[in-house]
Amino acid sequence: MAILDPETVFNQIQVALAQDDINRAIQILESLRGPDQADVFNELDEDDKIALLPKLDPSTSADILEDLEDEEAADLMRSISSDVAIRILDEMEPDEAADLLGDIDRQQAETILAGLENPEEVRPLLLHPDDSAGGLMTSEFLALRRRMTAAEALQAIRRWQPESENVQYLFVIDGQDSLVGVVSLRQLIVAAPHSILADVMNPDVITVQAGADQEECAQIMARYDLTALPVVNGNRRLIGVITIDDVIDVIEEETTEDIQRFGGAQPLDAPYLSTRISTVFRKRVGWLMLLLVTGSLTGTVMRWFEDELSAVVALSFFIPLLVGTGGNAGSQTTSTIIRALAVGEIDLGDALHSIWHELRVGLLLGLTMAVIAYLRAVTWGSGQGLALAVSLAIFTIVVWANGLGAFLPILAARLKIDPTTVSGPVMSTLVDATGLFIYFMIAKLILGLW
Amino acid sequence: MAILDPETVFNQIQVALAQDDINRAIQILESLRGPDQADVFNELDEDDKIALLPKLDPSTSADILEDLEDEEAADLMRSISSDVAIRILDEMEPDEAADLLGDIDRQQAETILAGLENPEEVRPLLLHPDDSAGGLMTSEFLALRRRMTAAEALQAIRRWQPESENVQYLFVIDGQDSLVGVVSLRQLIVAAPHSILADVMNPDVITVQAGADQEECAQIMARYDLTALPVVNGNRRLIGVITIDDVIDVIEEETTEDIQRFGGAQPLDAPYLSTRISTVFRKRVGWLMLLLVTGSLTGTVMRWFEDELSAVVALSFFIPLLVGTGGNAGSQTTSTIIRALAVGEIDLGDALHSIWHELRVGLLLGLTMAVIAYLRAVTWGSGQGLALAVSLAIFTIVVWANGLGAFLPILAARLKIDPTTVSGPVMSTLVDATGLFIYFMIAKLILGLW
Repeated sequence: MAILDPETVFNQIQVALAQDDINRAIQILESLRGPDQADVFNELDEDDKIALLPKLDPSTSADILEDLEDEEAADLMRSISSDVAIRILDEMEPDEAADLLGDIDRQQAETILAGLENPEEVRPLLLHPDDSAGGLMTSEFLALRRRMTAAEALQAIRRWQPESENVQYLFVIDGQDSLVGVVSLRQLIVAAPHSILADVMNPDVITVQAGADQEECAQIMARYDLTALPVVNGNRRLIGVITIDDVIDVIEEETTEDIQRFGGAQPLDAPYLSTRISTVFRKRVGWLMLLLVTGSLTGTVMRWFEDELSAVVALSFFIPLLVGTGGNAGSQTTSTIIRALAVGEIDLGDALHSIWHELRVGLLLGLTMAVIAYLRAVTWGSGQGLALAVSLAIFTIVVWANGLGAFLPILAARLKIDPTTVSGPVMSTLVDATGLFIYFMIAKLILGLW
Repeated sequence: MAILDPETVFNQIQVALAQDDINRAIQILESLRGPDQADVFNELDEDDKIALLPKLDPSTSADILEDLEDEEAADLMRSISSDVAIRILDEMEPDEAADLLGDIDRQQAETILAGLENPEEVRPLLLHPDDSAGGLMTSEFLALRRRMTAAEALQAIRRWQPESENVQYLFVIDGQDSLVGVVSLRQLIVAAPHSILADVMNPDVITVQAGADQEECAQIMARYDLTALPVVNGNRRLIGVITIDDVIDVIEEETTEDIQRFGGAQPLDAPYLSTRISTVFRKRVGWLMLLLVTGSLTGTVMRWFEDELSAVVALSFFIPLLVGTGGNAGSQTTSTIIRALAVGEIDLGDALHSIWHELRVGLLLGLTMAVIAYLRAVTWGSGQGLALAVSLAIFTIVVWANGLGAFLPILAARLKIDPTTVSGPVMSTLVDATGLFIYFMIAKLILGLW
């Protein structure tokens, strides 16, 4: 099947709905793949969604709800009857069902839970925070006894009917239900039918506790190339499994948060267009106010030099250029260093090395900028003295911005603060005040103003 | 096995090496997991690395070289004999072997390739660019005939000895070797032994061409929750498979590039500390120079208002605060919009909606900033007129920065330019010049300067 143009499909469904041919609309929708169904479905009017959902095959509805944004899915759940909701949730993977139930009100969730085929698979998942290993895991896994033979294990797999197709690893437990090994489907197939699991399995299983942060889980899975990560409790009893598809979503989510922090805002926690104006405002105003107040420091620095500014107004023409270049050089450095820290290319032991690296880059960049700034000043008809002061200042500011841009994220990491908090805007603001101070001091010296 | 503290292990190995007990060093190293082996190994002196590599089990050396950075691995390859290199590469997955051979000189690569057990698995992979589907795929896959029975397929799997354990899907081909379906190990196990693959398989296979961009492959796999993505040629012949572990590395790499672009630099393409100063310089100087030149526009704007600045020096005190706040508000917006575009939360059809969203956020933020700026100006002892001008200017600048911050990335996306290029530094520079113009015009009006 080719990947269809969603626009075309959407139009076909709209036509069918306009003709009240709901069966045709369903037929078109069900011919698509899960994520595409969700995309097309999401574009429909609210009324059409509520009308279609109970009429679709429950497993189709389950796929759609899984792929919709949390908020949107919860809204739909509130609009359909509990009977329909139960039929749909029975088709969902338990972790997705739990996420959805966690987003609707408690009473409706309890009613639905009571009607499910396997409520015991879903209920324990409701206890864990969304961003922990426990919130990410599914309770749908197959645990086999270590004394089982490979043939018996294959038989158990035949009897097992999981909702998810992505099953590649099975877990091996001992008499106390403690996790003691992992075995892949391929190992089971290749093994002699009578060999026992304890001899076939890999006893070196990497596990996490239910409370582990989701970002830590993602890092472990990426590092060790795992497609399934078992979650255990304090007694090493297997309570769930995190699968790679959920982790890719986590990586995407964490990247979004990092990039929003880079821009000097708190993460939105929800898709952009479905976030209310007031929420976006709240997430941004704090930083903006703080940066405005600290930024007014720069104004204070300038007030110290009021006499010089009155005497040589041309001094002020270079202010935006100097603080802009300083801020840009600083942003280049922080973004590189923060990312290198995040992916583990540098660690705290490399601190001095990294700062030295940046200072040398800063020397080269500073020299280049100094030459350009000198030429720019001269072509503006500024005097030799002012041109010299500007070019010396820009050199010093760039070196300083590079050094600070390397030092601050590393300091933040050492103090266990998220290094992204000292990114772009914070750096610019810091470099502004100090940079202007450097500029005026150099100008005073060179122009002999004092 | 617990995750050992790498520092401790490293020290133990250093002690063993100092006592010339190379076997002990090897024993300690081989007791670790692959990625941990690579980390510890990487900390050793160059001489120790070259001494250890030929003495390790070739499969251990293969794991280590796969997990080292490309540059570092290539350096080591150049220092060991071709015989040793051949033994190691024979243990590698073909895609990793090809990546490594692509990084060393042609003649050595040819010698090694000639000595490999299965050169035909590696050679075709050398033809594709590193960042394409062809460069990412492995040629190690199992293609089964559609007329085979499930039992025969399982038999074929037993005979097959891939280097990688991560095998979950098998591909089904017709008489012309065209890809016609995919079947999971679990489906084969569950199927009746005599059922033929054509009836068991899923005929809806998502594929990519060898030339597809690696980012596109990552997006497809993330969207459709795939753990393996088949690569086909123009005749739909299967030529390779991309596995999820490689894609996670791609996502990490692409995020690094985006974040570096966000900081206003070209991506480094290599780990930070192993990038030469001159390279880092080259990647940053272009943007910095461009931004300095466009930033000097701001100076030009100020020169137009030279008379006003001479008359009221206090006007200049607010320049850093105004341009800083405008730049920060712009960065907050661009980072949100760029990310929303990247993950598909908004598309070009949402352009007007997004800009309108931002303008309303900008109104709220602008009002708040105006109040704070007014108070700040008054406490600095500026006159009522100046305080009013500053607060009106900051309001206008914030709304303008938000609008521009939403408009530019969307415009870039529409023009098929990477939206990250209009991130932080570019926005700041743009907002600086226009913001100051707005400020001076308002000040002129209110202070009746003209």
